[in-house]
Amino acid sequence: MAVQEIKVGLMGLGTVGSGVVRLVERHQEDLWNQTGCTITIEKALVRDKQKERAVRLPEGVLTDKPEELLHHDGIDIVVEVMGGIEPTRGYIRQALETGKHVVTANKDLMALHGAELLSVAAKNHCDVFYEASVAGGIPILRALVEGFSSDRITRMVGIVNGTTNFILSEMKKNGMAFEDALAEAQRLGYAEADPTADVDGWDAARKMAILATLGFHTEWPLDEVKVRGIGDVTLEDVRFAGQLGYTLKLVGIARQDEGKVEVSVQPALLPDEHPLSSVDGVYNAVYVHGEAVGETMFYGPGAGELPTATAVVSDLVTVVKNQKLGVNGRSVVAPYREHKPKAPADIWSKHYFCLHVADEAGVLAGITQLFADKGVSLEKVLQVPRTREQEAEIILVTHQANGEQLLHIIEGLEALPTVVRIQSHYRVEGGEH
Amino acid sequence: MAVQEIKVGLMGLGTVGSGVVRLVERHQEDLWNQTGCTITIEKALVRDKQKERAVRLPEGVLTDKPEELLHHDGIDIVVEVMGGIEPTRGYIRQALETGKHVVTANKDLMALHGAELLSVAAKNHCDVFYEASVAGGIPILRALVEGFSSDRITRMVGIVNGTTNFILSEMKKNGMAFEDALAEAQRLGYAEADPTADVDGWDAARKMAILATLGFHTEWPLDEVKVRGIGDVTLEDVRFAGQLGYTLKLVGIARQDEGKVEVSVQPALLPDEHPLSSVDGVYNAVYVHGEAVGETMFYGPGAGELPTATAVVSDLVTVVKNQKLGVNGRSVVAPYREHKPKAPADIWSKHYFCLHVADEAGVLAGITQLFADKGVSLEKVLQVPRTREQEAEIILVTHQANGEQLLHIIEGLEALPTVVRIQSHYRVEGGEH
Repeated sequence: MAVQEIKVGLMGLGTVGSGVVRLVERHQEDLWNQTGCTITIEKALVRDKQKERAVRLPEGVLTDKPEELLHHDGIDIVVEVMGGIEPTRGYIRQALETGKHVVTANKDLMALHGAELLSVAAKNHCDVFYEASVAGGIPILRALVEGFSSDRITRMVGIVNGTTNFILSEMKKNGMAFEDALAEAQRLGYAEADPTADVDGWDAARKMAILATLGFHTEWPLDEVKVRGIGDVTLEDVRFAGQLGYTLKLVGIARQDEGKVEVSVQPALLPDEHPLSSVDGVYNAVYVHGEAVGETMFYGPGAGELPTATAVVSDLVTVVKNQKLGVNGRSVVAPYREHKPKAPADIWSKHYFCLHVADEAGVLAGITQLFADKGVSLEKVLQVPRTREQEAEIILVTHQANGEQLLHIIEGLEALPTVVRIQSHYRVEGGEH
Repeated sequence: MAVQEIKVGLMGLGTVGSGVVRLVERHQEDLWNQTGCTITIEKALVRDKQKERAVRLPEGVLTDKPEELLHHDGIDIVVEVMGGIEPTRGYIRQALETGKHVVTANKDLMALHGAELLSVAAKNHCDVFYEASVAGGIPILRALVEGFSSDRITRMVGIVNGTTNFILSEMKKNGMAFEDALAEAQRLGYAEADPTADVDGWDAARKMAILATLGFHTEWPLDEVKVRGIGDVTLEDVRFAGQLGYTLKLVGIARQDEGKVEVSVQPALLPDEHPLSSVDGVYNAVYVHGEAVGETMFYGPGAGELPTATAVVSDLVTVVKNQKLGVNGRSVVAPYREHKPKAPADIWSKHYFCLHVADEAGVLAGITQLFADKGVSLEKVLQVPRTREQEAEIILVTHQANGEQLLHIIEGLEALPTVVRIQSHYRVEGGEH
């Protein structure tokens, strides 16, 4: 087959967009060897054509008019790294409807409108790939879709937000308070000026919706991901967890038991020997448990110009290979399992409680009796020296309890006059590891 | 498209073969959803048809005649899990020459004759996939070939032999001597009665030859992998390494610098904070560093019935999908880089030495002077309390030194009258981590 020139329309020339330009340039020879094609950035859509850029593109490539790219007959593939929901969604639909394949790094869009876009793509025999949308440079979507195609995935636990993982790592390793660790993350460029999406867990939730949909073969909408952020995590929580042999991490948890699914994002305690516990700083990792394969973990950079660009350009290579074989849009397996969310009584886990209690005789007996009454046994109990006048702290780790028992226990603790307050409460994940 | 029945010929019904049968049965519905095909084991080649089996197959499936499978017109795909070089290689050639696709878990065969088999496959438009041949259940070959197709891989460090990793983990965690840890591995079924291939590093070497060939896009024959096993590793080595903040692991190292490649297997010291250091027991992990993506790691079970079967059956799914699209044998990228091995002077690394020396004044000065004379500076020096009359132990860790400097240093140490002997010497890997 003669050498073919593949023309790419790049939407967005920020950090990841610059990385894509650099990678396509630097690795041109390798890309040619992989695909037998030359890959050229034909148009790059930007908001401001005059702005100073980290990468230089030939005259005429930059444009601020989306139609110059979307209506360009020579462009086969659109790479979308501009982010946001609208107008991006409309652009991608237009691209697909005119037979252009799409590679995107846009987790927000894929978590909210992935099903719609994939169905438009299928109708038009187009590829849509989005490896870069979850865990940056880690090829986790390929692992789920192809590497484990023969297996039934039962659990995925992901550290999929580098900002919060950096903050919690700093709190544990350097004893920093939450606010100081956040400020440090902002100083280093790991956290945005407005860190809400990261800190509140919404960024991780989008990634977990994508992982759950692919891993469990069931449509899992973002609004069915239960989300709790790390805004109320204290240094004391991190330290107590450490004393008990746990590491506190913001994790996404997706579990499937007997066909029923739960997906959540929350700060949780992982046993120190769990492979995710030692994933520090801005690194990401996804732990995947399959019925047949057992425990696996995929680790790497979760963000950054070149790591994310690697995922984008590898997807681009797959599109080009498919194009040469004439099989674009033909290899996607649409979700085929019924959507069955777990009820609270189906969600089983261990739990950690830190209680501030009155410093009187019989308090611990009353509390442990409450757990026993609800049918939940205790794995660890730690009484901590009194922190202030008339108060003591009690740390408890339960054995497996379900969501209903948990609610009853919390209600019960709140009603006990000897319990001043539930200082903190976290799920303990990976105990069956 | 109408439902299609895909008939598989299974060669070998040992541990992995039984796993393949189980997985294809148990996950039939999922496999159907993934491929739109039913997958049936049509024939299974065994040595002894009368032997009691872990899985039951319908009447007439078992055969001890290879031609019943290889000349069977209805069989589209041969799954080879019988192992060995001959007659397996001949069977696979025959299968490919008659247009049958091949999935194999045979690392020995692929390391020795991979290039030949892949070229026969290409001529006949057949697929050959061998994900299970390296690191069992971890989809590492897919990650290299597809996930990082856009990147240039610079280093791969692999814990790719579970037996030796179990032995070294037991030595470190439980203070067991090498022989006791080996006996324990044999008792648990992790090591063969004849553990030579594992302990001497040859099993790992075969996997590294496959990884290097795929990761660096260059033909890397097995006889160019430098191999040193763990037979002479002592408990003292493991302990001294630990005191200095390192973990001793049998690792495969494949590095590419400026187009030149080195591939070796050896016991080496990894800094405790390196992601591979905490990979314990029979688990495998492959650390991959790419120019653009940076550091990644893939972790999971390296062997076992169902983990390995997962890799085999996932390959089977890919063959079936390719078949439905009519693109078998069309997506393989043959090695395209020139084969350029590094000279010793190109191989840079830190090194660890444990020296038994005469317990006299000026010994350390003489030794450190030797390193200085060869242009190698020292990162750590540890003088250990005298172990026996008139002797002391000196532990040294160098900064980066090349293979030529290393040879000169070893010669120099052997010539120094104050050095009783070089008790042990290991490469330190991952220091640039």
